[in-house]
Amino acid sequence: MKRLTAGILIFPDVDVLDFTGPFEVLSRARTVPGIESRRSDEHAPFHVCTVSQAGGPVRATGGLTVVPDHTFATAPTIDVLVVPGGFGTRPLLEDAELIDWIARAAGEAQFVTSVCTGALLLAKSGVLRGRRATTHYGALALLKELDPTITVERDERFVDDGVITSAGVSAGLDMALHLVERIAGPDVGKDTAKFMDYRSAASTQRDR
Amino acid sequence: MKRLTAGILIFPDVDVLDFTGPFEVLSRARTVPGIESRRSDEHAPFHVCTVSQAGGPVRATGGLTVVPDHTFATAPTIDVLVVPGGFGTRPLLEDAELIDWIARAAGEAQFVTSVCTGALLLAKSGVLRGRRATTHYGALALLKELDPTITVERDERFVDDGVITSAGVSAGLDMALHLVERIAGPDVGKDTAKFMDYRSAASTQRDR
Repeated sequence: MKRLTAGILIFPDVDVLDFTGPFEVLSRARTVPGIESRRSDEHAPFHVCTVSQAGGPVRATGGLTVVPDHTFATAPTIDVLVVPGGFGTRPLLEDAELIDWIARAAGEAQFVTSVCTGALLLAKSGVLRGRRATTHYGALALLKELDPTITVERDERFVDDGVITSAGVSAGLDMALHLVERIAGPDVGKDTAKFMDYRSAASTQRDR
Repeated sequence: MKRLTAGILIFPDVDVLDFTGPFEVLSRARTVPGIESRRSDEHAPFHVCTVSQAGGPVRATGGLTVVPDHTFATAPTIDVLVVPGGFGTRPLLEDAELIDWIARAAGEAQFVTSVCTGALLLAKSGVLRGRRATTHYGALALLKELDPTITVERDERFVDDGVITSAGVSAGLDMALHLVERIAGPDVGKDTAKFMDYRSAASTQRDR
């Protein structure tokens, strides 16, 4: 299979696990099971990169400082777009350049996803119009307010209605494992979870 | 309560979730429950920082590039030491300066923890002598080989025998939540898990 480029948006005060959860899952997925296949990228179904609006280090929530791989100006074509959340999303709702970039990147991507309050940015960009979606439990009302055509789901770890949105923070792990299963197959998803020693209650939820 | 300094070691090819899982948990913990208390550090029981051996950006597994807050030379006194793992641990087992630093930092810290194959570095530094401990399922035999006095636990998410070691990658989330509960109390741990929308099977395991 062709390797897909997963582009993860990062911004000031992005929640750490919101973006590192999907980073871990997508960068550690391998189409050949086991531990050894993780030592190289040969069997990696995704190339994962981080993208920020401007250049320079980005300070995530709690102070973790990340150097993005690309800016909006230099980003490659993104096949899998990941929009994380965090308190930093609120000012970005008024940032027309960023919202436009999300709309354009989402239009070009094969898969569009969000974690936590990243769904607010997707909503603002019009990507969730008429779809079922979810977000962090503290932002469900705001999601509906930003786009009343969205059917807001309150009790799901993630919602896949063409665009894939997830609940708060750690639910991004489940969303990303779902994405791996959809793109590379259930065995690859299960093997990736095993490598990560991930035995969440959500895997039960996924199987129900 | 006095705010504790949590120092997370990072190094080339450190596994992303190994260090960002505990970073998220410890940096998002608040002694006042709810969402609003997370908007400032006022009620944060931990100050979390990253520490690397030398200066300059550190490339984690998958290519995530992090700028550490401190080097060994500039690190503050660490109250809670977190040693993550990843494929990058193997060459470090032969790095006397790093192993010595871990031994010294562990000697000064109130709480010493590892995630995944970070336990191998703790073992090499002598910190696990005579203790029960665990690590990623792929490294259980190597852990015993590095220090035969360790009682290796194969089926636990984390083992708290004075030093707290956890199983692979995502188990660091459970270890860190346990640490929050031990230091700041069960309510603070549960509220932190709630904020992160974390509903792992491990919380059931912790309660059994």
